[in-house]
Amino acid sequence: MSLDSLTTLTVTHDGPVARVLFDHGEINLMDAAMMGDLWRLVKWLRAGGGRDVRVVVFESANPEFFIAHVDLALLAASVDNTEAAVGSFQDMVGAFRALDQVTIGLVAGRVAGGGMELLVNLDLRFAVTGRALFNQIETGIGVIPAGSGPQHLLHLLGRGRALEVLLGHDDLDAGLAERYGLVNRALDPDDVAPFLDRLVGRIATVPLADIAAVKATLAAPDLAAGLAVERSAFAEVLGRGAALPTMQRFLAAGGQTPAGERRLADLVADLDRPEPV
Amino acid sequence: MSLDSLTTLTVTHDGPVARVLFDHGEINLMDAAMMGDLWRLVKWLRAGGGRDVRVVVFESANPEFFIAHVDLALLAASVDNTEAAVGSFQDMVGAFRALDQVTIGLVAGRVAGGGMELLVNLDLRFAVTGRALFNQIETGIGVIPAGSGPQHLLHLLGRGRALEVLLGHDDLDAGLAERYGLVNRALDPDDVAPFLDRLVGRIATVPLADIAAVKATLAAPDLAAGLAVERSAFAEVLGRGAALPTMQRFLAAGGQTPAGERRLADLVADLDRPEPV
Amino acid sequence: MSLDSLTTLTVTHDGPVARVLFDHGEINLMDAAMMGDLWRLVKWLRAGGGRDVRVVVFESANPEFFIAHVDLALLAASVDNTEAAVGSFQDMVGAFRALDQVTIGLVAGRVAGGGMELLVNLDLRFAVTGRALFNQIETGIGVIPAGSGPQHLLHLLGRGRALEVLLGHDDLDAGLAERYGLVNRALDPDDVAPFLDRLVGRIATVPLADIAAVKATLAAPDLAAGLAVERSAFAEVLGRGAALPTMQRFLAAGGQTPAGERRLADLVADLDRPEPV
Repeated sequence: MSLDSLTTLTVTHDGPVARVLFDHGEINLMDAAMMGDLWRLVKWLRAGGGRDVRVVVFESANPEFFIAHVDLALLAASVDNTEAAVGSFQDMVGAFRALDQVTIGLVAGRVAGGGMELLVNLDLRFAVTGRALFNQIETGIGVIPAGSGPQHLLHLLGRGRALEVLLGHDDLDAGLAERYGLVNRALDPDDVAPFLDRLVGRIATVPLADIAAVKATLAAPDLAAGLAVERSAFAEVLGRGAALPTMQRFLAAGGQTPAGERRLADLVADLDRPEPV
Repeated sequence: MSLDSLTTLTVTHDGPVARVLFDHGEINLMDAAMMGDLWRLVKWLRAGGGRDVRVVVFESANPEFFIAHVDLALLAASVDNTEAAVGSFQDMVGAFRALDQVTIGLVAGRVAGGGMELLVNLDLRFAVTGRALFNQIETGIGVIPAGSGPQHLLHLLGRGRALEVLLGHDDLDAGLAERYGLVNRALDPDDVAPFLDRLVGRIATVPLADIAAVKATLAAPDLAAGLAVERSAFAEVLGRGAALPTMQRFLAAGGQTPAGERRLADLVADLDRPEPV
Repeated sequence: MSLDSLTTLTVTHDGPVARVLFDHGEINLMDAAMMGDLWRLVKWLRAGGGRDVRVVVFESANPEFFIAHVDLALLAASVDNTEAAVGSFQDMVGAFRALDQVTIGLVAGRVAGGGMELLVNLDLRFAVTGRALFNQIETGIGVIPAGSGPQHLLHLLGRGRALEVLLGHDDLDAGLAERYGLVNRALDPDDVAPFLDRLVGRIATVPLADIAAVKATLAAPDLAAGLAVERSAFAEVLGRGAALPTMQRFLAAGGQTPAGERRLADLVADLDRPEPV
C-alpha cells in the first residue's frame, strides 16, 4: 500500500505528523475518485507506512471549499442497492473514527453533506472564523443524511441543535459551530498556525499505542465498561516501560515542586521523552 | 378529532405550518383544562387533520408567561395514585416528542416546572433575550421534577449543569439558557421574526415522512442501531421517488458548480420541489 | 468515624452546609495521606455525622493550587498491582459521585491529573476567572488518565473536546473550561461569594432524601428506566409528607397569582419550609 496513486488528496508526512490536503477539481466534490483515495489513505494509516504517524491534519487546498458534498451521481446510481451503498459510505467514514491515530479537521471554506459526515468522524475539529461554513444539506435536496451524521451530531450538539441542523439545511458559520459544539473551537485566521502547531506538537509526543488506548476508553458502552477499559489500558501503558523513565525526568525537571508545577504545561513539553520498546 | 373544542390553546395553520398560542388565564397555568387540550392537539397532529402539518411553533399570547407550571391542585389530588398521575403526565409530554412533526418552542416570558418539561420534549427551543426566564422550580416547593425533565436536562445540559438547574430552582435567563444548551439559541427581540420565518420556511419544504425519518434516526439506543436506522430510512426516502427529481433540479440550478455551491443554502431554498407520491 | 484525624483537609460544617478546604503541603499533592483523608471524608458523609449535611463545597486553602495531581510515587509503586491500584482510585472518586449530598468544586488555582478526576466526580463545578487552570496532564508524563476522567470528560465535553483535553495535556483557563462544559460557569472573583451563597443557600433548603432522589433520576441507563425512577421517586417524596404543607405555604404566599409568579425564585426562597419526618 502506498500513497503514490492518490489523485484527489495530497499527503505529506514528517515523522509523527501527516498532513492531508483535499485538492480535487473546483469544489472538492466527494466523488468515487475521492472516496477511493480516502479508503487508500485509511488503509495506509492502519498498515505499514502509516504506523509512524500519530496525528493526521486534514485541510483543503481550495480556500472556498473544504469538501463540497457527495457527488449526486453516486446517489442516483445507488437506487438499486441503496442500503449497501449507504453502508459502504458509513464504513469508510467510520474507518477514520476507528483509527489508532488522532485525526484533526481544520475547516476553512464550505463543507456540506457527506463532507460533514466525514468531518464528524474525525476526532478533533476546528473552524477558521470568517471562512468556514457548515451545512448538512441533505433535506434541502430531497434526501436525508445517512452516513452517520445524525448519530454523531446528536452527541456533539444535543438533540435540539442536531435537529435544527439536520432539518434546517442552512449554513452555520464558525462561531455558531463552536457554540453548538460541532467544532472544538473557532480560530481567528492569524491564530490558526500557532494554535495548531502547539496542539499537534504536544499530541505528537504521545506514543501511538497510548493515543489508541485513550481513544478506546471513550468507546465503551457504559460507565462500568469504560472504567474497566481505563484500568487495563493504564496497566498496559505502564507495562510498556517508557512511563516510569518519563516520570523520573518530570520529577528531575521540577515536577511536584511549586516552581515546576506553576509552569506545568511547558515543563512537560520540554521533557526529553524515551520511546516505548 | 377537531380543534374547535380547545379553550386554553389557539391553533392556526396554513399549509405545513401550525402555530399554537398558549392563552389561558393570567399565567398560563398548566391545569387539567390545558392538559386536556394538549392531549387533543397531539392527537390531532397524529391523526387526520394534522397530517398536513410539518412544523408546529409554540408561543404564548401572554407576554409575561409562556407556561407558569402545573397546577398544584393536581399534585395534591394525586396523593393516592401518584405514580399513575405522574406517568400520565410523562405520556402527554412524551407524545409531543414522539410526533412525526417538528415542534419548536419560542419562549418569551416565564416557563417553570411542568411547563419546562413540556418544553424539553419539544424538538427545538429558542429564547427571547431580555424576556425569557426558565425555572425548574419543583425542589423549591417541596417536590422533585418527575415529568421527564431530569432525563432530558441531563442530555441537553450535561450532569453538572442539570443538577444545578434541578436543585437550585433558580431563574435562568435567555443567555444562560443558550450557554447551558437548554435552548438552541437566545434571539434578540428584533431578530425573532426573520430568524424563525427563515428556519420554519426551510423545514416546511421537507416532506413529513422525511422529517419523521430524521427524528427516528436520533432515537436509536446505540451507534450500530442508529446506523442501521439511517440506512433503511435513506432507502425509504429514495424509494418514495421525489428525491431524484429534486436532485435533478438542484443540478440544473447550478448545484455541483462553484457558483452554485457558493450560495448553497439559498440555491436549495429556491428549488421548486416535487411532492412525494 | 470522626473528622478529627484529618491532616490534609479542613472540614467545617454549619447545619446543612459543609466546607472542605484542601490544605496539604505546598501544592496540595494528592498523595496517600490526602487519599486516606478523602476516604474518611466520604465515609463520614455517608454515615452518622455527615447525614445532617446536604451540600459540600470543596475549595483550596492554597491560592495557586486546588489539587496538583496524584503523587507520582504512588504510580511507580503500583507497577506490580496496577489494575487494583487504579481501581481503588476509581472507587474513591466514584464514592463522591455516589453520595446522597450535592458536592460543589470551586476551582481557583491549578488542578491537574487525578485532581481533575476527583473534580469531574463532584456534582457541580465552578472556576474563578483569571485564577483557575485545568490540565489532564497524564499523556504529558508518559501515562494515560484512568481514574474515570475519560468517561466523565466524554459526557461533559463531547468526544472531540474530550480528546483534545486528554491528548493535548495543555492548560485550560476558566473561560475555556466553561465553553467546553468542564465547569458549570466561570465566575469573576468578585461574584464568587454572592453567587455561591445564593446557590448553596437554595440547595440547602432541599431535604437530603430529595437531593438523593434527584441525583438517582440522572443515573438510569436509558430513558424508560429514568422515567420509572422519576415516578417512584416522586411518589416517595410526596409520601414523606412535607411537600403538601410546603405547597400550601407557596399558594398562601402568592403562588399561582401573577404577582407571586413574577417573582417566583424569590417567593420560593422566602418560604418557611417544614422538615419531612
